[in-house]
Amino acid sequence: MFEPLHDNVVLQKEEVENKTSSGIILSPQNKETPGIAKVVACGKGKYVDGNLVPLQVKIGDRVVYKEYATTSITYEDTDYMIVSEESILAILK
Amino acid sequence: MFEPLHDNVVLQKEEVENKTSSGIILSPQNKETPGIAKVVACGKGKYVDGNLVPLQVKIGDRVVYKEYATTSITYEDTDYMIVSEESILAILK
Amino acid sequence: MFEPLHDNVVLQKEEVENKTSSGIILSPQNKETPGIAKVVACGKGKYVDGNLVPLQVKIGDRVVYKEYATTSITYEDTDYMIVSEESILAILK
Amino acid sequence: MFEPLHDNVVLQKEEVENKTSSGIILSPQNKETPGIAKVVACGKGKYVDGNLVPLQVKIGDRVVYKEYATTSITYEDTDYMIVSEESILAILK
Amino acid sequence: MFEPLHDNVVLQKEEVENKTSSGIILSPQNKETPGIAKVVACGKGKYVDGNLVPLQVKIGDRVVYKEYATTSITYEDTDYMIVSEESILAILK
Amino acid sequence: MFEPLHDNVVLQKEEVENKTSSGIILSPQNKETPGIAKVVACGKGKYVDGNLVPLQVKIGDRVVYKEYATTSITYEDTDYMIVSEESILAILK
Amino acid sequence: MFEPLHDNVVLQKEEVENKTSSGIILSPQNKETPGIAKVVACGKGKYVDGNLVPLQVKIGDRVVYKEYATTSITYEDTDYMIVSEESILAILK
Repeated sequence: MFEPLHDNVVLQKEEVENKTSSGIILSPQNKETPGIAKVVACGKGKYVDGNLVPLQVKIGDRVVYKEYATTSITYEDTDYMIVSEESILAILK
Repeated sequence: MFEPLHDNVVLQKEEVENKTSSGIILSPQNKETPGIAKVVACGKGKYVDGNLVPLQVKIGDRVVYKEYATTSITYEDTDYMIVSEESILAILK
Repeated sequence: MFEPLHDNVVLQKEEVENKTSSGIILSPQNKETPGIAKVVACGKGKYVDGNLVPLQVKIGDRVVYKEYATTSITYEDTDYMIVSEESILAILK
Repeated sequence: MFEPLHDNVVLQKEEVENKTSSGIILSPQNKETPGIAKVVACGKGKYVDGNLVPLQVKIGDRVVYKEYATTSITYEDTDYMIVSEESILAILK
Repeated sequence: MFEPLHDNVVLQKEEVENKTSSGIILSPQNKETPGIAKVVACGKGKYVDGNLVPLQVKIGDRVVYKEYATTSITYEDTDYMIVSEESILAILK
Repeated sequence: MFEPLHDNVVLQKEEVENKTSSGIILSPQNKETPGIAKVVACGKGKYVDGNLVPLQVKIGDRVVYKEYATTSITYEDTDYMIVSEESILAILK
Repeated sequence: MFEPLHDNVVLQKEEVENKTSSGIILSPQNKETPGIAKVVACGKGKYVDGNLVPLQVKIGDRVVYKEYATTSITYEDTDYMIVSEESILAILK
């Protein structure tokens, strides 16, 4: 499995048709629109001014992220994206 | 609901015709013009030089923000925008 | 009224014909020329290396500012501009 | 052999046909896709705010890295890539 | 009069024909050439890493400055320029 | 002779035909390919956050460096390159 | 005379025909080639993270500098260049 470095997070895309069960309407997937995905692996965090700042997200969180900032990889027939936590906007509760 | 990360803030657009009850005339909505919206969710703040700097806005505030700096998302048929507090110019009292 | 965030300042344009009473000739209003305006609201200041650096301007000051760095908004039929203090060059005494 | 400087890491490409034994499907090698490789040499780390931050990867790790960020060199008939750890996304366990 | 902010300095252009009394030949005034001017007002300095770094120039100094980095303003029929001290290269003794 | 400043290093190109005795094949010298050279002079290091960080390379080291980042100079009929240590990728042992 | 500010240095060009007495061949003066010059005046140094970092060069040093980074000025019929020490590569001993 993945062990992300620094403040990287591995996401698994949530297959959303036009409207998800939880009511999220995602305008057609263009790079500007945020995506929704689940966190499957987290890095340890990033050094800021000599201090390790831990991540705010954790495995299992549903998050809104900036689509254009991701790197895609397929592993055991599943699509994943790796993104820096800076490109994750919010957690969906 | 949303739990924004870092210094992100979730805004709900204030439907303004040409002149709002409180007297705000918004020149036609182009990306350069600031918008008016209500804060519906706030991040915890951002690390600056090792210190967590809390946000200055809070839920319920009416704020003037830079239109071009937002990320739009629709949730349960309501339009929201997610923006970093750096792109919020002022609170309207 | 406005409560600016961070080091933002709200300015009210000084209606200057070619030469103001105090002798200031403003070359035709192009984006490169500095403008003259009055401070009507101030932010609390900005965090620099963990310290809150207060603003140098205060309400009532007449200031010279970089025209191109402003965000315009009209409120109760009055034109205002919101600008970061970094784009204010000097106070006119 | 190589002794990388700072936070540089030397990688040896993993020859992947379309699907590797461990199930990783790499879309055709274009600069946007991440690559998979083995770590063969590591730098001591990088100074951040006066502190030496050690590397998170070590010799023998299989890593996912950003293809476009590498510098290629051939040594004793073997292809190597030198990359900064910032461009390594995750370790594959 | 002017009270410059931060590390801004107000300069009054030295009217130089081709060769000034003090022997300074200024190639035709194009943006690349440095100019010569007198300091008429100084800011308090700039915060660098939490410390206020005072200015090195003072009122009355003759300085060499980068022409392209100035903001021009006319006040009581006199041309002034406002420039950050970073764009002042040297004091002429 | 040269006394480089800051973290600059003076290199003397290693004349490599297609394959050097030590087995290094350098793809045709284009700006993207790294070069191989010997260190002939070193600066004292660079200040990072107030601390002088010494160089990792020393005189006599054979290094892999980014070709495009060098400044060339000929001295007593010998070609040298001056480069910042940041553009040196690894030492060849 | 000049009193440079910050980490600025005033250089006097060394008139080099193709090969100087000390054997320095300067490829035709294009902006990419480094120049050779003598230091005639030095600034006090630059603040880095709150500490004043003194200059490494001193008056009388012969230095190799990046041609494109200079500002030229003629004073009492002599050509000078003002450059930041960051653009000086090495001292020639």
